[in-house]
Amino acid sequence: MNTDPAPAPRRYAKGEARRTAILEAALDVFATAGYRNGGLREVAAKAGLTHAGVRHYFPTKLDLLHAVLGWRDEQAIRQMSSLDGPVGVLRQWVEAARYNQNAPRMVELQVALAAEATSADHPLHDYLRERYEFAVGFLRGTFTALAARGELADGVEPESAARGLIALTDGVQTQWLLDREHVDMVELVRSAIQRLVTVEI
Amino acid sequence: MNTDPAPAPRRYAKGEARRTAILEAALDVFATAGYRNGGLREVAAKAGLTHAGVRHYFPTKLDLLHAVLGWRDEQAIRQMSSLDGPVGVLRQWVEAARYNQNAPRMVELQVALAAEATSADHPLHDYLRERYEFAVGFLRGTFTALAARGELADGVEPESAARGLIALTDGVQTQWLLDREHVDMVELVRSAIQRLVTVEI
Repeated sequence: MNTDPAPAPRRYAKGEARRTAILEAALDVFATAGYRNGGLREVAAKAGLTHAGVRHYFPTKLDLLHAVLGWRDEQAIRQMSSLDGPVGVLRQWVEAARYNQNAPRMVELQVALAAEATSADHPLHDYLRERYEFAVGFLRGTFTALAARGELADGVEPESAARGLIALTDGVQTQWLLDREHVDMVELVRSAIQRLVTVEI
Repeated sequence: MNTDPAPAPRRYAKGEARRTAILEAALDVFATAGYRNGGLREVAAKAGLTHAGVRHYFPTKLDLLHAVLGWRDEQAIRQMSSLDGPVGVLRQWVEAARYNQNAPRMVELQVALAAEATSADHPLHDYLRERYEFAVGFLRGTFTALAARGELADGVEPESAARGLIALTDGVQTQWLLDREHVDMVELVRSAIQRLVTVEI
């Protein structure tokens, strides 16, 4: 119920700014302390709000996680969409692996969530399923564009390449968490992409 | 302390047979009911033993899980080692994906365990790490043998191919659990292997 007397546009802008501040703080907290140990109070402190202030936007930690992941996806998609063609998208995919190599808590969060949310009764199951579907579609489009330019390696099929690259990227995260010294996520992702295309990645 | 008067070899054989019966029952229970819902009592009933009888061999459910996974690994390794050369190993890798496609609970178990046990304080962390190291070494050897036969695709490096194939196989399981209708684990694994070698898989 709306009892706030402020004019709508200004209220909207203020709310949006707060929401973004919370998401930035939450990403930081989750990526540093992990999802289990990171709390709404810590997020509130970092965003300069009260606990109740954060709960106004995100009633539960799960709501906040959901929003953070969606927000990161949006950013990543905006970044990739602004790139110069399909080769740029694949190079950005490698850069995302480089980013992850410096954000172990974020990687832990993604690995744990992906495993948990495969259960049909998990609250983020549908979200995760849609997230994968979207990513598959996006990469399928990228590989299809490369095929049209004659830059796909022989015998590579866009759908299978898209699913395979996402699978490899996920699996490499697990191996990296187990042995950070010896597993080079960036190089494993780069070389996998390189095997799919004829241009240099 | 040994107070059993039976001669050692017979006792050993009997113990081994019971141990195997428990492992077979546990694999069945975990693969059907999952690790969380599958209990030692159910395993005992299936193996024709008492609950205490099972606990004599495996004091906790975690001990039993550890043993089941080790036992499955041993079987898989024995099977792969008996195969006719490195191409046979890769074809068997595809067959393992086919087996998994009919054992969703086992796949759930593996995905959940891999995510959980990436935490350094998880009781199965070291085991999982060694399991991956072993698998990487095994596949690296397979790809090195293929390289010597001139059957590796251009630019493929054995270590990276080994880690990449394991990663893709893991990641494909997550996608399959999210969307069993549209994700074909067997074909995704097969086509990924096919891109690494020049012989037909």
